[in-house]
Amino acid sequence: MTSPQTLTLSSVKEAHALIKPFIHQTPVLTSTYLNTLASTPQTPEALSATEWSGQAPARPTLRLHFKCENFQRIGAFKARGAFHAIERLKQSPDFDPSRGVVTHSSGNHAQALSLAAKESSIPAYIIMPTLSTPSKIAATLAQGAQVTFSGPTAPEREAAAQKIISSTGAVLIPPYDHPDIISGQGTAALELLSQVVLPTTTTTLNAIITPCGGGGLLSGTALACSESPTTKVYGAEPSFQGADDAKRGYYSGQRIPSVKSLTVADGLRTPLGEIPWEIIYERRLVDGMYAVTEDQIRAAMRLVYERLKVVVEPSAVVGLAVALYNEDFRNMVEQEGGEGGWDLGVVFSGGNVSLDALGELLKE
Amino acid sequence: MTSPQTLTLSSVKEAHALIKPFIHQTPVLTSTYLNTLASTPQTPEALSATEWSGQAPARPTLRLHFKCENFQRIGAFKARGAFHAIERLKQSPDFDPSRGVVTHSSGNHAQALSLAAKESSIPAYIIMPTLSTPSKIAATLAQGAQVTFSGPTAPEREAAAQKIISSTGAVLIPPYDHPDIISGQGTAALELLSQVVLPTTTTTLNAIITPCGGGGLLSGTALACSESPTTKVYGAEPSFQGADDAKRGYYSGQRIPSVKSLTVADGLRTPLGEIPWEIIYERRLVDGMYAVTEDQIRAAMRLVYERLKVVVEPSAVVGLAVALYNEDFRNMVEQEGGEGGWDLGVVFSGGNVSLDALGELLKE
Repeated sequence: MTSPQTLTLSSVKEAHALIKPFIHQTPVLTSTYLNTLASTPQTPEALSATEWSGQAPARPTLRLHFKCENFQRIGAFKARGAFHAIERLKQSPDFDPSRGVVTHSSGNHAQALSLAAKESSIPAYIIMPTLSTPSKIAATLAQGAQVTFSGPTAPEREAAAQKIISSTGAVLIPPYDHPDIISGQGTAALELLSQVVLPTTTTTLNAIITPCGGGGLLSGTALACSESPTTKVYGAEPSFQGADDAKRGYYSGQRIPSVKSLTVADGLRTPLGEIPWEIIYERRLVDGMYAVTEDQIRAAMRLVYERLKVVVEPSAVVGLAVALYNEDFRNMVEQEGGEGGWDLGVVFSGGNVSLDALGELLKE
Repeated sequence: MTSPQTLTLSSVKEAHALIKPFIHQTPVLTSTYLNTLASTPQTPEALSATEWSGQAPARPTLRLHFKCENFQRIGAFKARGAFHAIERLKQSPDFDPSRGVVTHSSGNHAQALSLAAKESSIPAYIIMPTLSTPSKIAATLAQGAQVTFSGPTAPEREAAAQKIISSTGAVLIPPYDHPDIISGQGTAALELLSQVVLPTTTTTLNAIITPCGGGGLLSGTALACSESPTTKVYGAEPSFQGADDAKRGYYSGQRIPSVKSLTVADGLRTPLGEIPWEIIYERRLVDGMYAVTEDQIRAAMRLVYERLKVVVEPSAVVGLAVALYNEDFRNMVEQEGGEGGWDLGVVFSGGNVSLDALGELLKE
C-alpha cells in the first residue's frame, strides 16, 4: 500500500499502467444541446425559489465533456480503485492470496472488489446490511463473492468485518479511505485529460467537476490534475439533509465525520474520508465545492436520459446539476472564463440504477 | 431522386459521402454479458409457453455488435435518410428551396426532416395527428418546423399534405417509401461493417439484423450488404396484433398493405412500404424475417438499460430480442454458424422514449 502522504500525479499514472488491462477506457460524450443550455442564463423565475432570488442570472459559457464511467466495468468508476488495490496487494510479499479480501459496502465498491478479486482468483468477503436491496445482493453474489449480513450501523459492520478478518486473515479494502483506491479512481480524470482534444489555444480542460461522497473519486481527480495548473478541480454534492458535508467542511476548515441523509443520490450519502480530506482540503488540491437540490439532480438526470441517451444513476449527475443550476458556480465560470468560456470535464460516476425505481426518478 | 430500380450498394455509398458532414458516426458497443446470455441455451421453462415448447433449446454461439443509432442526431437513424433526401433535393435544378418540404409523421422522421431542412434554411411542414403526444409536438416545433394537425387516418393525412403542397409547392418526403430515404438509412449498416474489426479469419460480420416497420432501415441495410455475400441480413418485428406484417408477407409472397397494432414498439406499427418490399422480397436481398412478443421486447429493453447503460426505445431492441429469444433464429445460427458461431450486427434504431412511460416499460 502506498503511503497517503506520498500520493501524487505519479501515483495515478502508475495506477493507470497497472489497471489498464482490466478496465475500459470509457468514452467522453458531448452534446450541443446541453452546451447551449449550460451557456444560457437561468430565468429569474427559476431563481426565484432559490438563495439567488432577485440576483441577475450568471452568463457563463460552458462546453461540457462527459466522462462516462457508467460504461465502466460493473457500471461505475469503482472498478478502477478495486483493480488497483488488488494489483498492489498482489505485489506485496506479505500478501497470501488464499486469505482473500474483505469490505463492507452495499453498493458499487462491493461489486467492483468482488470482480477484481475474482479475476485474480482471490476470495472476496462482502459485508452487506441485512436490508440491502435484493438486486444488489444478487449482483454481488453473481461476481462470486461471499456475502455476510450485518446490522446497518458502522460498529455492527466493523464487528462483522473484524470477525471475518480473524477467521480468514482477509485484507480489508475500504471503499474510499485508502491510498490505492484513491489513486485508482484518479485514473478516470487522467484519461479524460488525454481524451479531450480542444480546437482552441487552450491545451487542456479548464476544470473537472466530480461527485463527492467518501471523496475517493474527487481526491483521485485532484491528484490527476495536481500538476496541471490551468485545470481546476471542483466537487459536487447533494444538499439534502446535510449530504453536503464535504462542502461544509471545506468552507469551515473542519471535516464533518458523519452524515445521515436519504438523498436520491444514494452513492453520496457517506461522509468525506480522512485521506480524501487531507488531499482535498489540507493540500488545497480542490478549488471549490458546490451543492445542488434533489429537484436539480432529477432535472439533470432527465436531461441526460433525453439528450445523451445514456443510463446514469442519480449520484452521477450532481456535477452536471452544478454546472446547470448552481449560480455560485456559474458566476465563477463567467468571471474566470470570460468570453471564451470554459471547457469543463464532468465525470458521470456510474449507471447502476434500479430499473424499478427509474420511472419514479424520471417523473417530472 | 434516384429511381427505385437502380438502388444498389453504390447508392448507399454515395448517400454516405453526401450526409457525412451532417450526421454522427455512431459508436458500436459490445457486452460480454449479453454475448454469454445469447450463447446460452434457453431453459425448457422459458420455452414452455411458446411455440417451441418441448423442443430441445438451440445452442448458438453469438457475438453481438450493437450499432447505436440512439446516439444519432435527433436520437434515431431517421436523420440519415432525411439529410440524404434534402441533399439530393438541393442538387435538383427543379427544386425551389423556398417552397419547402412536407411530410406526415408523428415520430422520428418528422424531427429528422425538420432538422435537415432547418440546416439548409428550407421550410418544413409537418402534418401530425391531432392526438400526438405534446412532447413530440414540442420536439418538432423546436426544430423550427411548421406543424399542421390532421385526423389520424391515412386519407385525412394525405388530404392535409395535398393542401400544403397546393398552397406552398412543398415537396413531399415520405418516411420510408422513397429511394433517397432508403439509401440514406442504409448508411448505418455501411458504417457498422467498417467499424467492426474481427480478430478471426472471417473478414466481416456474418449477419446484420434490424428492426422493420415501414422497411426503410431494413431495405437500406440490405442494399449496404448486397455485395457482401458472406453477410446475411435479417429483419425483426413485433408479433403483437399482426405487427409482423413484413414477416407474414415475406413468407406468403404477398405484401400486406395495412397494419393495426398497438405494439409497445411504436415505431414499428406501420406496414412495409412498396419500395422496401421490392428490395426485401422481390430482389431477395433479405435472408429472413423473425418476430418477437411484447414480453420479449420488454425483457431485451431491460437488459440494454441494465447492461449496456444506454437509453433505447422499444422499437430499437427487437433485433436483440430475436437473437435472445426466437428459437427459429437461434436454431438457424446454430446450424449456419457451427462451433465458431456468428458475429451479428444488431442495429439499435433509436432512443426517443418518453421518460414518463419509461418506468412502466421497464417494470418486470
